[in-house]
Amino acid sequence: MKTRRLLVLAVVTVTFVVAGGNAVAGQKASQVTGVNAIAAARSAERPQGCVAPDRGIDLYAVELPKDPVTGQVRLGYGLTPLSASYPGPTIEMIEGECLAITLHNQVPVATLEQLRTDPKHPIGVSLHAHGVKYTQMSDGTVHSDSYVPPGGSRTYIWFAKPRNANDGSQGTAGYWWYHDHVVGGPHGTQGIATGLFGGLVVRRQGDQRPDRTYVLAFGDRQTINLRRSPEADTCDPQNPQPGPTCLVARLGERVEFVVIGIGNDMHTFHVHGHSWADTRTGRVDGSKQLVDSVPVVDNKTLGPGDTFGAQIVAGDSVGPGHWMVHCHMQFHSDLGMSTTLHILDENGVVLTHGNHG
Amino acid sequence: MKTRRLLVLAVVTVTFVVAGGNAVAGQKASQVTGVNAIAAARSAERPQGCVAPDRGIDLYAVELPKDPVTGQVRLGYGLTPLSASYPGPTIEMIEGECLAITLHNQVPVATLEQLRTDPKHPIGVSLHAHGVKYTQMSDGTVHSDSYVPPGGSRTYIWFAKPRNANDGSQGTAGYWWYHDHVVGGPHGTQGIATGLFGGLVVRRQGDQRPDRTYVLAFGDRQTINLRRSPEADTCDPQNPQPGPTCLVARLGERVEFVVIGIGNDMHTFHVHGHSWADTRTGRVDGSKQLVDSVPVVDNKTLGPGDTFGAQIVAGDSVGPGHWMVHCHMQFHSDLGMSTTLHILDENGVVLTHGNHG
Amino acid sequence: MKTRRLLVLAVVTVTFVVAGGNAVAGQKASQVTGVNAIAAARSAERPQGCVAPDRGIDLYAVELPKDPVTGQVRLGYGLTPLSASYPGPTIEMIEGECLAITLHNQVPVATLEQLRTDPKHPIGVSLHAHGVKYTQMSDGTVHSDSYVPPGGSRTYIWFAKPRNANDGSQGTAGYWWYHDHVVGGPHGTQGIATGLFGGLVVRRQGDQRPDRTYVLAFGDRQTINLRRSPEADTCDPQNPQPGPTCLVARLGERVEFVVIGIGNDMHTFHVHGHSWADTRTGRVDGSKQLVDSVPVVDNKTLGPGDTFGAQIVAGDSVGPGHWMVHCHMQFHSDLGMSTTLHILDENGVVLTHGNHG
Repeated sequence: MKTRRLLVLAVVTVTFVVAGGNAVAGQKASQVTGVNAIAAARSAERPQGCVAPDRGIDLYAVELPKDPVTGQVRLGYGLTPLSASYPGPTIEMIEGECLAITLHNQVPVATLEQLRTDPKHPIGVSLHAHGVKYTQMSDGTVHSDSYVPPGGSRTYIWFAKPRNANDGSQGTAGYWWYHDHVVGGPHGTQGIATGLFGGLVVRRQGDQRPDRTYVLAFGDRQTINLRRSPEADTCDPQNPQPGPTCLVARLGERVEFVVIGIGNDMHTFHVHGHSWADTRTGRVDGSKQLVDSVPVVDNKTLGPGDTFGAQIVAGDSVGPGHWMVHCHMQFHSDLGMSTTLHILDENGVVLTHGNHG
Repeated sequence: MKTRRLLVLAVVTVTFVVAGGNAVAGQKASQVTGVNAIAAARSAERPQGCVAPDRGIDLYAVELPKDPVTGQVRLGYGLTPLSASYPGPTIEMIEGECLAITLHNQVPVATLEQLRTDPKHPIGVSLHAHGVKYTQMSDGTVHSDSYVPPGGSRTYIWFAKPRNANDGSQGTAGYWWYHDHVVGGPHGTQGIATGLFGGLVVRRQGDQRPDRTYVLAFGDRQTINLRRSPEADTCDPQNPQPGPTCLVARLGERVEFVVIGIGNDMHTFHVHGHSWADTRTGRVDGSKQLVDSVPVVDNKTLGPGDTFGAQIVAGDSVGPGHWMVHCHMQFHSDLGMSTTLHILDENGVVLTHGNHG
Repeated sequence: MKTRRLLVLAVVTVTFVVAGGNAVAGQKASQVTGVNAIAAARSAERPQGCVAPDRGIDLYAVELPKDPVTGQVRLGYGLTPLSASYPGPTIEMIEGECLAITLHNQVPVATLEQLRTDPKHPIGVSLHAHGVKYTQMSDGTVHSDSYVPPGGSRTYIWFAKPRNANDGSQGTAGYWWYHDHVVGGPHGTQGIATGLFGGLVVRRQGDQRPDRTYVLAFGDRQTINLRRSPEADTCDPQNPQPGPTCLVARLGERVEFVVIGIGNDMHTFHVHGHSWADTRTGRVDGSKQLVDSVPVVDNKTLGPGDTFGAQIVAGDSVGPGHWMVHCHMQFHSDLGMSTTLHILDENGVVLTHGNHG
């Protein structure tokens, strides 16, 4: 029933993660430091607790080739114009860190006009973050004048506020997302629908780091990351390379999903063979009472704007294989809202079954 | 970019909160004590643990002017007939307290008949509570004969049962709601849809009290409190006065949202710039493991009948401003399911941006 | 207002619970031990941690009489072909236990062909579990060749992996379900829709056992367990016998609901007069901070594939009576998505109200 083929995983870390002080392997600091962004941010309004930005990045909003299946307009954020994608780069912060992001709007005017339904609505793109702290000037909305007209740029400041044990205020560690809030209308509906969104992970000091991070946005038209099967899983079965549409891990690796709800519909996120504690990190430690209280789940409802993290240990107890990841709304999964987590064995060998390999 | 205008916040507490022993400022005990209700309750069936009602209130169900935009029938509960509103008065209890509520049905017979689809269904209004304890006689349903015919009155008894550490039973502290369960049909669908609902907050001894409480019911037709933009935010920008359709706070105040799902649709509740721990109170204290386990959120799904509290510190780290509060289902927000939390600075000065002030 | 009639509860435990070492009263071990299943499992692939199955059961998938109201096809799982039902038998495990289940496909070929929309899709039935651990060979999917053709049988192995305190991995204790993943298409949409599903409860050592367990699947067409009112509540009011469509308990009994979302729609689960802690077990014990953090709910949203447990103490504080259990989406409850929890007094006497008894 089984044959095995040796595969080489050239890239063991998803390379579009933009990390902070604890740099992700393969990510050079020079690529992610936006000197101009930090300079611009020094004179801008900053959320309380952010004395000065700790680092800066440039982010480009561009138009990408139309969706090959539907012909729909696609926009994307990228650390460079050429590397823009949907979802955009996953941004990672550590509590206590303050980040300056200079957004450059390179989306053609005609495209933005086409996406607008109300001619009185301004055209532009913006950056609106969930979870982190920002002043009105970094809200990314029209009413706060914090968006970017065509050809322009603007520096946003996000603060990953830490927990304050004295006043009991919670920190900002969590699984979040960022998105446009302007394209098409005052809620950025067309910006999100065309691809202007990405994952945002804020870690707490001491959090265990995952080996891999995958962002999965569950959205309209039964799509995962705006794609549906078979586009939702573009892995080469002979040589699966980790990427936003190819979920791969080796046995035993800690895999982190950043699950985002976008659009207009409800969805449920289900992974075969794996489960996670319904906590901030997917783990639970501590007293017996705490451990006994926390539910463990393998299926979780999310609505638009909701985000959560699901950390699993790939193949834990269940072994390697091709494990389904899908929405459990039956008509959604039947219409293609399904992909696969390919778990290779400890040597990077893919498992095949019968005539399905 | 900024100009400031001095505003006076005459009313710093939302006045329709009906509090218990720790009376809300501006709320005279004489207004909320229903001597008749307590007397009536002494002979009624009581939930176990309620020896006698600690206090009583009168509640009036009346017809209000039709919705000015849609022309729909509007009903409301009020502590007096003239003060009835939708949502009705927010009722606050402390664990251990037993409350007698005498409901007076002053809704015209013709209106109740008009809202009924089945001529065999009785006409009347009722009071059904979530979270607190009540016997069948206070269930507010037709099959238990616990509703109020036109012109009648009936005393309901609610018990905010405390936690019993001995048997491990949980208490009733939480964010709840009350609503009609009879108008139009056996589930009170027309009663809820026309306005017969309100928030119910049960506190635990030692809970930190908020400075302000706002009830936000997310419902059908993309409405917040049965209103949609611009009706969802009726603040005078020159002089915003706190009220059910005008969300205002000063910098640093603890603001509590009671979020209620009503009707037939799913929604998500999102606040810009603010987040809260996904706990009973919105705070989390205790061991590092507990604090590390609890997710912090700024967007939360709710279905009909769901309720939760979201306590935030107004402007914490992010400063004053006009912060969006909206459903993140994109077509809902685009169709007006959006309002604003106006956060004034510590002196009560409103922040204005560019030409939007 | 009240009359009382003496009722005898002949069966105090729901008999379709298939328990492990701690056998449920009235359930003979010989009925639930599948010697053949264990033998078959010894040579099969097993999840890590399962040295050998601790016990085995046989499970039969059969066609049942068509739904008497809608005329729809109905399938069911049963411990014997004659006892098949929808939902199927509730399976109970203890963390650490390994279970072998031999599934026998006795559904007629013509029925499976009729349920298939794509002629290229294979016909068969399968068993896919949530929460517990299983290898690809027990995934119950087409792509893993782990389904059962007509007339065949196959042994699945599930491992209720315990928590590992050393590596912090969570256990599998929780409220889950099992279902077909093959009938009609690659996600088993028609299998689930016709009745091939059941509840799966994994307990942790030390968990308090309930006195009764009821499985309630909330699904399409406003159904509870594929039935809607009055079929959702088939109790004889003179002599209510506990069963999947007759929810009965005595005052003070611990009642456990296994709530499952199936199909395509969102629902909310609401119980009148009762509430539970939103934890793994419905209880919360431990430090004051933990107890203060955990929300208590009486209404909970669930999407397809979601499952949770809700343990309540029948009539706690509120007394006996006929307590509604319904979806709080108003049009769902209005269309019959509602049933009743009949709570008898400590002597097994049913409470009647007015002319409703």
